[in-house]
Amino acid sequence: MTAPQDALLVFQPSGRKGRFPIGTPILDAARELGVYVESVCGGRGICGKCQVSVASGKFAKFGIESSEEGLSPKGFKEERYDEKRGLEPGMRLSCSATLQGDIVIDIPDAFRVAGQTIRKDANTVGMLRDPAIRLCYVELDEPDMHNPMGDGDRLCRAIEQQFDLEQLEIQHHLKAELQKILRRGKWEVTAAVHLDGARPQIVALYEGLSDEMSGIAVDIGSTTIAAHLTDLSTGEILASAGVANPQIRFGEDLMSRVSYVMMNDRGLDDLNKAVVDAVNSLIGQLLDMSGRKRSHLLDCVFVANPVMHHLFLGWDPTEIGQAPFALVQSSPVHVAAHEIGLDLPKGTQTYLLPLIAGHVGADAAAVLLAERPQENTEPTLIVDVGTNAEIALWNGTQLFAASSPTGPAFEGAETSCGQRAAPGAIERIRINRDDLTCRYKVIGTEQWSDEDGFVEGVQTTGVTGICGSGIIEIIGEMRLAGILTDDGIIRAPQNEAEQAVLIEHGRTWSFVVREGTPRLVVTQNDVRAIQLAKAALYAGVKLLMDKAELQTLGEIKLAGAFGSYIDPAYAMLLGLVPDCTVENVRAVGNAAGQGALRALLSRGERRSIEETALTVTKIETALEPAFQQHFVDAMGIPNSVDAFPLTRAHFDMDAFVKKTAEAGEKPKRRGRRRERR
Amino acid sequence: MTAPQDALLVFQPSGRKGRFPIGTPILDAARELGVYVESVCGGRGICGKCQVSVASGKFAKFGIESSEEGLSPKGFKEERYDEKRGLEPGMRLSCSATLQGDIVIDIPDAFRVAGQTIRKDANTVGMLRDPAIRLCYVELDEPDMHNPMGDGDRLCRAIEQQFDLEQLEIQHHLKAELQKILRRGKWEVTAAVHLDGARPQIVALYEGLSDEMSGIAVDIGSTTIAAHLTDLSTGEILASAGVANPQIRFGEDLMSRVSYVMMNDRGLDDLNKAVVDAVNSLIGQLLDMSGRKRSHLLDCVFVANPVMHHLFLGWDPTEIGQAPFALVQSSPVHVAAHEIGLDLPKGTQTYLLPLIAGHVGADAAAVLLAERPQENTEPTLIVDVGTNAEIALWNGTQLFAASSPTGPAFEGAETSCGQRAAPGAIERIRINRDDLTCRYKVIGTEQWSDEDGFVEGVQTTGVTGICGSGIIEIIGEMRLAGILTDDGIIRAPQNEAEQAVLIEHGRTWSFVVREGTPRLVVTQNDVRAIQLAKAALYAGVKLLMDKAELQTLGEIKLAGAFGSYIDPAYAMLLGLVPDCTVENVRAVGNAAGQGALRALLSRGERRSIEETALTVTKIETALEPAFQQHFVDAMGIPNSVDAFPLTRAHFDMDAFVKKTAEAGEKPKRRGRRRERR
Repeated sequence: MTAPQDALLVFQPSGRKGRFPIGTPILDAARELGVYVESVCGGRGICGKCQVSVASGKFAKFGIESSEEGLSPKGFKEERYDEKRGLEPGMRLSCSATLQGDIVIDIPDAFRVAGQTIRKDANTVGMLRDPAIRLCYVELDEPDMHNPMGDGDRLCRAIEQQFDLEQLEIQHHLKAELQKILRRGKWEVTAAVHLDGARPQIVALYEGLSDEMSGIAVDIGSTTIAAHLTDLSTGEILASAGVANPQIRFGEDLMSRVSYVMMNDRGLDDLNKAVVDAVNSLIGQLLDMSGRKRSHLLDCVFVANPVMHHLFLGWDPTEIGQAPFALVQSSPVHVAAHEIGLDLPKGTQTYLLPLIAGHVGADAAAVLLAERPQENTEPTLIVDVGTNAEIALWNGTQLFAASSPTGPAFEGAETSCGQRAAPGAIERIRINRDDLTCRYKVIGTEQWSDEDGFVEGVQTTGVTGICGSGIIEIIGEMRLAGILTDDGIIRAPQNEAEQAVLIEHGRTWSFVVREGTPRLVVTQNDVRAIQLAKAALYAGVKLLMDKAELQTLGEIKLAGAFGSYIDPAYAMLLGLVPDCTVENVRAVGNAAGQGALRALLSRGERRSIEETALTVTKIETALEPAFQQHFVDAMGIPNSVDAFPLTRAHFDMDAFVKKTAEAGEKPKRRGRRRERR
Repeated sequence: MTAPQDALLVFQPSGRKGRFPIGTPILDAARELGVYVESVCGGRGICGKCQVSVASGKFAKFGIESSEEGLSPKGFKEERYDEKRGLEPGMRLSCSATLQGDIVIDIPDAFRVAGQTIRKDANTVGMLRDPAIRLCYVELDEPDMHNPMGDGDRLCRAIEQQFDLEQLEIQHHLKAELQKILRRGKWEVTAAVHLDGARPQIVALYEGLSDEMSGIAVDIGSTTIAAHLTDLSTGEILASAGVANPQIRFGEDLMSRVSYVMMNDRGLDDLNKAVVDAVNSLIGQLLDMSGRKRSHLLDCVFVANPVMHHLFLGWDPTEIGQAPFALVQSSPVHVAAHEIGLDLPKGTQTYLLPLIAGHVGADAAAVLLAERPQENTEPTLIVDVGTNAEIALWNGTQLFAASSPTGPAFEGAETSCGQRAAPGAIERIRINRDDLTCRYKVIGTEQWSDEDGFVEGVQTTGVTGICGSGIIEIIGEMRLAGILTDDGIIRAPQNEAEQAVLIEHGRTWSFVVREGTPRLVVTQNDVRAIQLAKAALYAGVKLLMDKAELQTLGEIKLAGAFGSYIDPAYAMLLGLVPDCTVENVRAVGNAAGQGALRALLSRGERRSIEETALTVTKIETALEPAFQQHFVDAMGIPNSVDAFPLTRAHFDMDAFVKKTAEAGEKPKRRGRRRERR
């Protein structure tokens, strides 16, 4: 009987398998099967990126018994690597180990590394990983007079051959240093190859073996800029940081910034420089935090709304400030980082996701990329609430998108007691139904205001204002407590308890949340501001539902920082979003940022959102005749027309309202401030 | 009988023909047949670039009678064009005129325009014309809210569709201005599209219709830089200018410039800046001379030897100063003009031809492109003599190339009486065989020194020195006059005539060419310098002939400024090049410059030389063992080993030498200076 000529090779966890001739290197087989095994050194046993282990045991599913016998013994390359850099027990270099018999191979879940994320809302677990940059280590022959090919050409040919690339080019800026790097590296170099252009290009070149490559994913919001520094090969988030968008000094909302550009000769430069400087300082911060090298930061992804997108790229946003909202470019932008003023190596690339429409930008595209509503069977609404609200709707067959200018009220601006979500801000609040006093929770302190330790907790921060999610809750609570009408009017006090918490304010009434310094009250104007903002949002959603021919929703996802902190039930109580089973309304965190991370880590994801973006039906809310009526209807709390039965049931509103009606105008016992001083 | 459904269409002068349905626009048919008819406006009858005329008469060859009946009458577009811009009698717009019957169409030879060249040695007659830039005029729809595609995307799609392009991109620097240009142009714009990269790219954008696009072809020599400004659409040379290479102050020859880089920290920057500044000033000069706009100068081609090529691109040439002469890059260079410091629009492209070897550069490639020796049936030698000599040899089956460091002696340096080829320099000279006096011709004056008008002619310039071609002739004449031995020794005077013209100079003798101020003499050292230079050249040629297994040559082409002015017979008399029938030794002018022009006007020519360059067998002369012996042999005049029978016959040397031998040592009548003072 002759020895078997080939053997079955199964890769876990993907389950991909095939028969290969005895002696086939495992790495080669993996590539043939499309199993992603990292390799920087091109199979020289130097980089140690291609490690795998043997899954031992009987695998009935595949009909084989797998053991280490199925692999060749460690050869010279693996022994050398083990000596030099250490190989964990059981681990093998797949470039060196060859197939000897039927075997099941485990690919260590490199994604697991990405589990060590720093912030809960930035997580790369499970994301596809085929980044735009690939590190290629090669050992070149020394130049030979009889082969007059240039050093650069020889480098390209070697990489093309060993990494299966074609028409590789070297970016011009590298050529002046190329010969020195080759010689200092003793003809061993690592090239960073950019794979997301018309042709592969070497964008950076390092002496010797290097496995460091990082990238940043940046969400440029009107109010805040958030960035993650990520290891491009493992997907691990190395550092995260955020900064206020310094453009705020030129205007809180987008339209005021567009006006600034139109009214000031150097307006565009001012706004562009402000955001670029902020991103540059964020980059410095991320590099300091992570200890990574600037010279190895090779790729960037930016997502922003259309106005911010234009301003960041130095493009005049005037045209998107007025109908027909003409964008400079709606397709994705590929540009060198240094060309847009970023203090990064000349070879560092940037990618900006496609824009969906004049007011629905790359940030909305990023949300779609992160959340993939089109993979749901249920009708799904995604709302990303910021100064501008991005709205996406999936009706089971088609994607719809729009944006609605909610203004900054949800971010704590435009209200008398409002403030940013920062330590000292009230973020949760409940009104005692009997005495109408408030108990609340402040950012930076664990305890509620009626719990032990609260006073100590707020000693450094104070209680300084009410942030967006707090405003939503207090207005909802006021409604539940019966001191706010369906129309959003703060009623004149009708009993002692109410007299204690309601104060006259010209011809209107205000609700006192907290005495002290500062005294925090909710005025009639505050309620109006929130009503206008939420009506704009709701009207946008309703327009999309009309277009999508939907009466009800299966799922609602609240994206963005505000969406993450808001209590979904209160969002419905106020009528920000349509009525829905409360359990199906979920915060999905910074989906735009997650989408940016996906695009940073994967070219496949880029292609996917580029395709998706072209399929979206865009609605310009401001120009739809039905918008105005939806808006007026949405001024009510939760809504003057829509019934919100699920929300009413959740809060037992009908019972409560009945109860307060029964209680009539009989004053309750005088409220006492329960906060302990 | 039914009307014919199609008709025969013949284009002249190409002779391409085909049958097309009645009603087919002539421009469409031309494109289908691969006949190059210009069109900027995409067939809108606006640009007037696609004019053709009807060839009337019987064409037995095609079996048809051609007349204006074969074309549709002038329609609205042609009448409008005629009114607005004027249409010459008989001319038709091929985009508008349609086929009505069998016809022969003349394409006006746009190349004829190129006949109006300014300098004899820069001529684009007959060159292929498919430039890297194409102007595309389009009329866009205004933006529409219901089609949220960006203005830039709509521009690309329109051009792609109308000019049959794919994956068109816009260079980033244009995007900031794009919307303003579109609006100022009232949605009519002309885009300049670069077609020689991985993907077509819009590199410039003009309001309305524009048909101006120009380019420069620059030959960067060690000593002089010469440039032509060319109309990219017609091929016409608009202006030509030259300037001394200011790098001369850092070293006359290449190796001294390489040393300067090695010895000085800022040496590379100094040398790079010098040449880039010189090219920038040339560009300014060319634009001033031609009245063309800088914003429409869109493409550049540079040719240079490898050291100049590196220095111009800001690359350290140190490695090519020593074996193994490693180039940074031997393949062609595509880079944005502004990236290499040129004061040109951001979209302006540059192309540098491939390098053939460490010492055989893009200039040699350009010579091959201009002269195409590989299309000859005869063995052909091309020699481009400058401070470095480029040598190419075709043996009927294979191309060989080498370079030889001749030094600047041929350019008038390194000899006591030598000077650049400039007004006042002696360029032609004859020695009277009887009295050994000289008659000569000076650059800037038509008359020889023994003709009327000479004295007046040189009044402003004086007679200041002897340029390269003059040196070659005087040494040849000295040899013919018998005062110089085969070994290059100036003999001691042996008669009265010789005593009058030979003066003692230490232990050697010098020949007095001219008394006066300055007194011009040829010293023994001068002869030695020329011997060394010509021996280096000849040895290089012989090495290539060895490799090519050639004993004799069919044709010799002398390229370069020196090659253009030298008398081919004297070049052989001195043994610069091998013996050959004098009629087959020809000056071919600035072949490198011509090659640069070809590459500027045609992408096809670029691909052609890129292919050719890869087939060339390169010889590094300095490392071939046989070089030394060839060099020593070549010190003789014409050569110590090779017989040069054709040259000897041409000059009737054997008879002359016999005659002088017969004359013995008898002094001739005393020479008198025949120059009239």
